[in-house]
Amino acid sequence: MNRLSLNQITTKTWSVPEAVAGCAESGVEWIGLWRDKVAETGVQETAKLIKDHGLKVSSLCRGGFFTNVTPEGSFVDGLAETKTALDEAAQLGADVLVLVVGGIADNDLSGSRQQVADAIGALAPLALERGVRLGLEPLHPMQCAERSVLSTVDQALAIAEEHPTEAVGVVIDEFHVWWDPRIEESIAKASGRIAGFHVCDQLVPLTDTLMGRALPGDGPINHRHLRACVEAAGYTGPIEVEVFNTALWQRPGAEVLAAVITSYQTHVQ
Amino acid sequence: MNRLSLNQITTKTWSVPEAVAGCAESGVEWIGLWRDKVAETGVQETAKLIKDHGLKVSSLCRGGFFTNVTPEGSFVDGLAETKTALDEAAQLGADVLVLVVGGIADNDLSGSRQQVADAIGALAPLALERGVRLGLEPLHPMQCAERSVLSTVDQALAIAEEHPTEAVGVVIDEFHVWWDPRIEESIAKASGRIAGFHVCDQLVPLTDTLMGRALPGDGPINHRHLRACVEAAGYTGPIEVEVFNTALWQRPGAEVLAAVITSYQTHVQ
Repeated sequence: MNRLSLNQITTKTWSVPEAVAGCAESGVEWIGLWRDKVAETGVQETAKLIKDHGLKVSSLCRGGFFTNVTPEGSFVDGLAETKTALDEAAQLGADVLVLVVGGIADNDLSGSRQQVADAIGALAPLALERGVRLGLEPLHPMQCAERSVLSTVDQALAIAEEHPTEAVGVVIDEFHVWWDPRIEESIAKASGRIAGFHVCDQLVPLTDTLMGRALPGDGPINHRHLRACVEAAGYTGPIEVEVFNTALWQRPGAEVLAAVITSYQTHVQ
Repeated sequence: MNRLSLNQITTKTWSVPEAVAGCAESGVEWIGLWRDKVAETGVQETAKLIKDHGLKVSSLCRGGFFTNVTPEGSFVDGLAETKTALDEAAQLGADVLVLVVGGIADNDLSGSRQQVADAIGALAPLALERGVRLGLEPLHPMQCAERSVLSTVDQALAIAEEHPTEAVGVVIDEFHVWWDPRIEESIAKASGRIAGFHVCDQLVPLTDTLMGRALPGDGPINHRHLRACVEAAGYTGPIEVEVFNTALWQRPGAEVLAAVITSYQTHVQ
């Protein structure tokens, strides 16, 4: 249980103060924060709440969008936004800033991938300075066009390995990579580079590319197997339960957190 | 133009006689047939129509479902069905039987993958006998759970290589594999094993896992690049335009075929 982290998007109805209090009351020691929720409460106030409740921040979500286009197709200055996010992560005491690197710009897949690699090169020194690791999270190939031209652990690792281990790591999110026939091999190769492990399941049938997730145990993903892989690769850090699911998001936070704990204990731990 | 093949699912409103006549009138020399449409007309009658119109059959869709479960979760005898499909393909003069290998049975991904490899082992001798190549088509990872535990070209190739080249090949469908960071390398490795090349595009945003396809040119896929890859790997066979798209499927067949030809000439040829 001391490795369980609540990624706060899972308890969507909860504000930061509610999520922090909820974790503390339930004996959950870690929390993964989201910038929009943190902004509602304020960075300093969030940092204080975290400290007062004796919690630790597993990650801050998210920086990225280095191809300068949002999933909705509008402009965003990904590099500038990510620098701000790195500052916030440092203030919050987050070990990792999770990166959603961005989708395809100008219909140019290889150029967009290069933009991502270049952005990481520009940010790695700042990450070292701030003491926050950049966490490259490969997203599911169905999100390649809009959200992430990084689709596999191998691919994220190839970028991370250009930089110091403390500066750039790889975040393994089960939903995004479970299908990969090379996943065992890729995770083994990522030894020393794993900056986070996110668990959740996939709805079957998969009716939605973004919201088609479920609590561990409600789908085909073998959580104990993947956990064993990341542990064999040396990762002993927090395990975030991060679920995008419209029905779950409508339930009260306390009820969701209780379900998260049960699901984690039954299918992951 | 002499390589363009109409995969008949693209002109969903058309029967086999209509699709065959449509191709002949438009100068399209190849057609990819679907078993359900062929069954409406009859296998022998379809074979006669094809011959009378001077067409060639690029592939028959489809066999597979070797994990014995349909996308809807009911039982199917995949091996028996595929044997029947091989017979039909031989009667139709199809070079290739396209295989959708099936999704996960019993929440066991690795066991399901083994079932697929075993089924190919059982079918390869029959394929040689019938003179029809089994075409292993990796499907997009978002269809892993329900439809295909084969998600990458590498993975399909590893199974194919256990068998004679004439018995088992790999079908490259752009929609399913365009996002793969290893795709260039994988296609190069597949030299001599490519049993088909299907082109289409992906809708952005991708709102549907099955129907989110578009005519070449209406999405982020670089068709000329992928065509160059398969050609460099020695594939000079027919190029099927295969589009699942609800709006397209409601338009009259002749109008769709005209759009297919324009799209092919503009973005693929």
